[in-house]
Amino acid sequence: MLDYPALAALAQIIRRGSFDAAAAALGVTPSAVSQRIKSLEERLGQVLIHRGPPATGTETGLQLLRHYDQVTLLEQGLAQKLRPDDGPPALRIAVNADSLATWFPPAMQALPVLYDLVIDDQDHAREWLRKGQVSAAITSDPSPVAGCDAFHLGAMRYRALATPTFIARHFPNGIDTDSLSRAPAVIFNAKDALQSRWAELATGRKLHLHGHLIPASEPFAHAVRLGLGWGMIPEAMAPAEDATLTPLNPDLPLDVPLYWHVQRAMAPTLSPLTAETRKRAADALRP
Amino acid sequence: MLDYPALAALAQIIRRGSFDAAAAALGVTPSAVSQRIKSLEERLGQVLIHRGPPATGTETGLQLLRHYDQVTLLEQGLAQKLRPDDGPPALRIAVNADSLATWFPPAMQALPVLYDLVIDDQDHAREWLRKGQVSAAITSDPSPVAGCDAFHLGAMRYRALATPTFIARHFPNGIDTDSLSRAPAVIFNAKDALQSRWAELATGRKLHLHGHLIPASEPFAHAVRLGLGWGMIPEAMAPAEDATLTPLNPDLPLDVPLYWHVQRAMAPTLSPLTAETRKRAADALRP
Repeated sequence: MLDYPALAALAQIIRRGSFDAAAAALGVTPSAVSQRIKSLEERLGQVLIHRGPPATGTETGLQLLRHYDQVTLLEQGLAQKLRPDDGPPALRIAVNADSLATWFPPAMQALPVLYDLVIDDQDHAREWLRKGQVSAAITSDPSPVAGCDAFHLGAMRYRALATPTFIARHFPNGIDTDSLSRAPAVIFNAKDALQSRWAELATGRKLHLHGHLIPASEPFAHAVRLGLGWGMIPEAMAPAEDATLTPLNPDLPLDVPLYWHVQRAMAPTLSPLTAETRKRAADALRP
Repeated sequence: MLDYPALAALAQIIRRGSFDAAAAALGVTPSAVSQRIKSLEERLGQVLIHRGPPATGTETGLQLLRHYDQVTLLEQGLAQKLRPDDGPPALRIAVNADSLATWFPPAMQALPVLYDLVIDDQDHAREWLRKGQVSAAITSDPSPVAGCDAFHLGAMRYRALATPTFIARHFPNGIDTDSLSRAPAVIFNAKDALQSRWAELATGRKLHLHGHLIPASEPFAHAVRLGLGWGMIPEAMAPAEDATLTPLNPDLPLDVPLYWHVQRAMAPTLSPLTAETRKRAADALRP
């Protein structure tokens, strides 16, 4: 049997990035945390933590983390609570920011767990799934991840929007390679390719866009509404009847398909959440 | 004179975390980026980039980044544009999520630059200022950072809120050490101490809180409104007359003072933004 207090310490270190933060979260001394990890490493004959800073898990450390998460969640499936003073386990899920800002939160009510949400744009949660750093993820990547099941959720429709004043100023002669290369965009973060993908659809060419980086959904839309730039906004956050924003090209929305990936070992435990997520998505997204 | 194309490559690598991403952003090959950095390192006789992944700046690399940012912004102060095809420089600013979700965005209109916003909870932007990774920051830390000026902006008032149903279920006998330790909180991220600070104010004891981690302002408030937990919400996002949320203790708000820190070398260039930020804060925050 593995040493679970040591695994709990391992999980806290990998999630919080330091031995001190893990100790504080566990309510023990840093030297106790350090001792637990050292014993576990000696017993397994492998390094589990790159000491950092920040402290990160080795491949084996991440495998143990995944195992630990599965065990804690499976334990919760049992009706009895063996140690009522323990807090419930946290369910770590990657969610793209725009789903979290719109349709996803109500689905969280399906399971009585504590959620530990990780936000990323929709193109990068795959890596976390593969490494077992999350139990499930909402991502735009359809291809299955080893050990995970994937469900199509529907498509989030984005439109390229700006204020009428912005359009008059930056696109007086329409949307073309030149005007799109010069007009400031609003971009979620350096990994966000939505604006570039749309610009390529609109012009047939890969463009180098300039833009503001605003890595939060509501402030992103707020920046577009203030006229700081044009940006891809989900229709749920800017319905077509909202006249304060105008599409750069009304005939060119961009549909981003979303998928629910769930670690297979945890699929039975998470099935109420999977069902509710699929239901909410079916209501909110396009087929 | 320093090699500015090499500095541009350095800046992109540190910001994007890899040589490949920097090359893509600059529209050159990865080997060109690599060569620029190598030449610069050889000329200066110092390592500038920890190769990673992710690639990060050494102390010297970060000093050069800060210098590069200052130069690009100072260049922009010149009326003439020497190379009109260049995009404008980006102004990197750290903003706490709740300011970005409420009063800050309109202040950004004060300067015609591209913004590169970095979001952190209000207790950790100091490190970025010290390392020169941001030109300015909105933070709760009043103590000056070397090379920066600080201005008091006012206090953001938070209240500990939950739905009436949540309060009836989790606090039937009131707010005390026991009930606060058991009731799920909503917490921004592992660095967010607001809930713990309030719990200590309310009970006189340091408690270990359990909670959902939801690192985005609007979804955080949404989760509290759904009854997933109690949480500290800025009054701008949940006014006192909003009856769907009830304070855990109406007599115990938590005021978080906020400060505008700005790199002194850039203070003249940023003065319109500093003035507008102070004005918007004076309107939105408590004195």
